[in-house]
Amino acid sequence: MSINLREHIEKIVLLTDDEFALVLSHFTSKKYKKHQFLIQEGEPVLYSYFVVSGLLKLVHTDASGKEHIVSFAMEDWWESDFQAFHNQSKATMSLECLEDTEVFCLTLEDYKSLCSQLQKMEYFFLEKANRGHIGSQQRILSLITSNAKERYEQLLERYPSLFQRVPKSMIASYLGVSRETLSRLTN
Amino acid sequence: MSINLREHIEKIVLLTDDEFALVLSHFTSKKYKKHQFLIQEGEPVLYSYFVVSGLLKLVHTDASGKEHIVSFAMEDWWESDFQAFHNQSKATMSLECLEDTEVFCLTLEDYKSLCSQLQKMEYFFLEKANRGHIGSQQRILSLITSNAKERYEQLLERYPSLFQRVPKSMIASYLGVSRETLSRLTN
Repeated sequence: MSINLREHIEKIVLLTDDEFALVLSHFTSKKYKKHQFLIQEGEPVLYSYFVVSGLLKLVHTDASGKEHIVSFAMEDWWESDFQAFHNQSKATMSLECLEDTEVFCLTLEDYKSLCSQLQKMEYFFLEKANRGHIGSQQRILSLITSNAKERYEQLLERYPSLFQRVPKSMIASYLGVSRETLSRLTN
Repeated sequence: MSINLREHIEKIVLLTDDEFALVLSHFTSKKYKKHQFLIQEGEPVLYSYFVVSGLLKLVHTDASGKEHIVSFAMEDWWESDFQAFHNQSKATMSLECLEDTEVFCLTLEDYKSLCSQLQKMEYFFLEKANRGHIGSQQRILSLITSNAKERYEQLLERYPSLFQRVPKSMIASYLGVSRETLSRLTN
């Protein structure tokens, strides 16, 4: 599956051909192979990414070396270490391809330039930021109110395709349980 | 402590007197007593709230009747059930005063009207939404990577005044542990 950037934006705001040309001139397109990193912990975060095709994981590695999956990102999704991107600080998370992946990349400078040149795009990013904030508030709610079995069922209901695309060990890491606990839950 | 709306906005964008008058005309000011509810689960969410003074808790009550604190909100903070506010759906959380509280209230219609009339305000809300999204991403990270003792220490470091203002049972609910576990952690 591959997603068209213009269609993605036009779910929220309609653009003329000239406006879309201006938008597109602010992005660069890149392709990555499975296992390549778009963001590495400790390095600067140059881009916010729009996923055209493929699948990625956003991961934090704790002091003991254990990986925690903060989120998955797939087609039609924006992803970055947003704190590091907006504050121009070093990444505290890494972003790694789980499949061959194609993205559109936007620098912070181009993000700000687009917002100031085209109010429609500022509105678009405002809508996306609000939805991102809402999505995070819902995940917090799920983490503090649901047990692992309920979180597993919520994930399965919301993203059934994910279960065909990533190994169970990663689903377990996203849910914050061990591989063994996940096996018990799913039997 | 009481917060001035104009100073709050001007941390991000500067306004002329006329512009601030326009902004202010979109808000209504309200005062609530301790224990009053601004949002009730199951009811429509009419406003996004800017807290001028006081303290509130955003709470989800699960099927068994147990309260889970999603966040606290204090001076200089925006709070709402953002999903219900933006989607004009019923609240899945309640917002209750823990102290006498003064807020500025903004309807979704006024929010959209302000954004379209004054690009500076759209930029302001974009910045706030990005920071809200970042804050939530950090809380998710903390929930999946830190144990209760670490989460307690992070909260104490970030909001020391909270520990003077709310009972320990609420700190425990925010951290997702029992009152007894919290006592063990803090001895």
